[in-house]
Amino acid sequence: MQIPLTMKLDDEKGELIILDQSMLPNEVKYLRLSGTEEIWEAIQTLRVRGAPAIGIAAAYGAYLAVRNAQPSTMEDAIRIFMEARARLATSRPTAVNLFWALDRMQKRLEKEISQSSVQRLCTALREEADAIRKEDAQVCRCIGEHSLELLERGWGLLTHCNAGVLATSEYGTALAPIYLGQNRGYGFRVFADETRPLLQGARLTAWELMQAGVDVTLICDNMAASIMKKGWVQAVLVGCDRIAANGDTANKIGTLGLAILAAHFGVPFYVHAPRSTIDMNCATGLEIEIEERAAEEITTKWYEKPMAPEGVKAFNPAFDVTDAELITAIVTEKGVARQPYDRSLRAMMK
Amino acid sequence: MQIPLTMKLDDEKGELIILDQSMLPNEVKYLRLSGTEEIWEAIQTLRVRGAPAIGIAAAYGAYLAVRNAQPSTMEDAIRIFMEARARLATSRPTAVNLFWALDRMQKRLEKEISQSSVQRLCTALREEADAIRKEDAQVCRCIGEHSLELLERGWGLLTHCNAGVLATSEYGTALAPIYLGQNRGYGFRVFADETRPLLQGARLTAWELMQAGVDVTLICDNMAASIMKKGWVQAVLVGCDRIAANGDTANKIGTLGLAILAAHFGVPFYVHAPRSTIDMNCATGLEIEIEERAAEEITTKWYEKPMAPEGVKAFNPAFDVTDAELITAIVTEKGVARQPYDRSLRAMMK
Repeated sequence: MQIPLTMKLDDEKGELIILDQSMLPNEVKYLRLSGTEEIWEAIQTLRVRGAPAIGIAAAYGAYLAVRNAQPSTMEDAIRIFMEARARLATSRPTAVNLFWALDRMQKRLEKEISQSSVQRLCTALREEADAIRKEDAQVCRCIGEHSLELLERGWGLLTHCNAGVLATSEYGTALAPIYLGQNRGYGFRVFADETRPLLQGARLTAWELMQAGVDVTLICDNMAASIMKKGWVQAVLVGCDRIAANGDTANKIGTLGLAILAAHFGVPFYVHAPRSTIDMNCATGLEIEIEERAAEEITTKWYEKPMAPEGVKAFNPAFDVTDAELITAIVTEKGVARQPYDRSLRAMMK
Repeated sequence: MQIPLTMKLDDEKGELIILDQSMLPNEVKYLRLSGTEEIWEAIQTLRVRGAPAIGIAAAYGAYLAVRNAQPSTMEDAIRIFMEARARLATSRPTAVNLFWALDRMQKRLEKEISQSSVQRLCTALREEADAIRKEDAQVCRCIGEHSLELLERGWGLLTHCNAGVLATSEYGTALAPIYLGQNRGYGFRVFADETRPLLQGARLTAWELMQAGVDVTLICDNMAASIMKKGWVQAVLVGCDRIAANGDTANKIGTLGLAILAAHFGVPFYVHAPRSTIDMNCATGLEIEIEERAAEEITTKWYEKPMAPEGVKAFNPAFDVTDAELITAIVTEKGVARQPYDRSLRAMMK
């Protein structure tokens, strides 16, 4: 696999190096970010995206805030951390990994407070962010192994948005079984939804799968029903941004529609996520806040000229919630959860 | 309503004036076409599109071929007509109205052959093309009246692609009840799918509905499930390109998916078409040829920069076939046909 790293800490310079995904596939450009505002902007404008990658970037952001401020007292260090933590938590509203990673950083901070120097606190925060990144890579690999057991050689697989290497630290979530299968000669034929309006499927998924030599075919979102009807799809693989305790799943807009189509055609629909994506404090999908983004993403973004009449109203939710009963299985690093999810997810979180 | 004419014959100059829909919504530009190749190109590149409008343009094209060649003998006139007819029939493969309109022109030609001069033949062909256009306007109005009886005041209506004024001579098919309702204060709230890859919903439907003062909201195709789940949609209204004898319906890519979503959410799904769209020689949707178009329509068209990796494979069918059992009713100028369609469509065609 020849896929560039999504992000990397340059600890000597106090910078987070990120691949600017907003420039793909036309430019492979790395940014060096050192301030909380820069990292907030990178998350908010989707230069870094994908629930796990957002969590990792935010964790490094919280660390770098303290490291780069060089506070002289623990009190200053804590204040700086908490300010950065609060700011970074507002960068995107839907992905639970963001809050999970920031909570984890805060717990580490709280653990270090009594017996630490500022220097030791800094080291601890860096270790914690590094651990989040490394564990994510391990988690993605485990998700891939569990998911691959559900798939057969030669299958056609449909995926939506980007739940690949670019959304995580390595392997991806929904794309992890595809990469593992590719290395083992499974001969999957992958279909990537372009994923309007931000085109993560066309720009990112098609790009990273091509880099890895996977057989990938791009389609528009509204062609999914056609290829299912043709019998070209044996499973739908998606990632997700938040899973409620009952199995309702928030993911990129368009996922709900795909799940309904898959159910209609009898195609299994698999959700992939690290356990950190499961929010046991969220009873059902009704409680998940759905981010609404600007109309311009639909009407003018990417285009040479506006592609809709000036001033037209547009509705632009970034996510939708797929009902638990439409999901064949939820695959995490711990294994495969099936219906009823209230029970299977509780067991998985133990 | 302030919507410009889709097309108009300038008989003095021997030109068909068409609104170049490929320039909308940024430019309202009219083209003057006199040759068969020009009209073929206008249909093939979607400057004129929509099944009824294609039929009308082809009919005028066949007339103008004879008129502008000024043949000296009936034999020449017939040869010129048949060449133009054959050429125009290859401009798009899926819309049955194209073949229907050209057949009708040919029948008129055959009727005139024995007792006519070239001059009289020309007049007869112009009358026939004019009749096709006028009847289309009448047909669309009737479709609108029948469809409006299925709808209630204040409803949310979802439409796909463009089955409006721009696709016909007046009123449209699927949009006809919306225009009639608008004039009668029904207060519909319309959602327009942008309709990738050619964006007919964003560029054309949103534009013509806004011109008429209709409350229209643009969404990406993959958001339809979300707005249905929210309860914002009380009916889906679509046009179509060909209806088989059993009710299977070819329409713009994405229609099949919408029909499956509508069935899932219990929303009625209404297909609108003139009877000329019903192809009783086509037993089921399996016999309908689906036009596949260039990958570039997905990867580069409209964009400032390519939005997919260079050389990526893409699958780009222009239409899909919606199974008859997913269609709540088919509305034509004769009324409303319901399941089982093999029976109701046969009755409608009498």
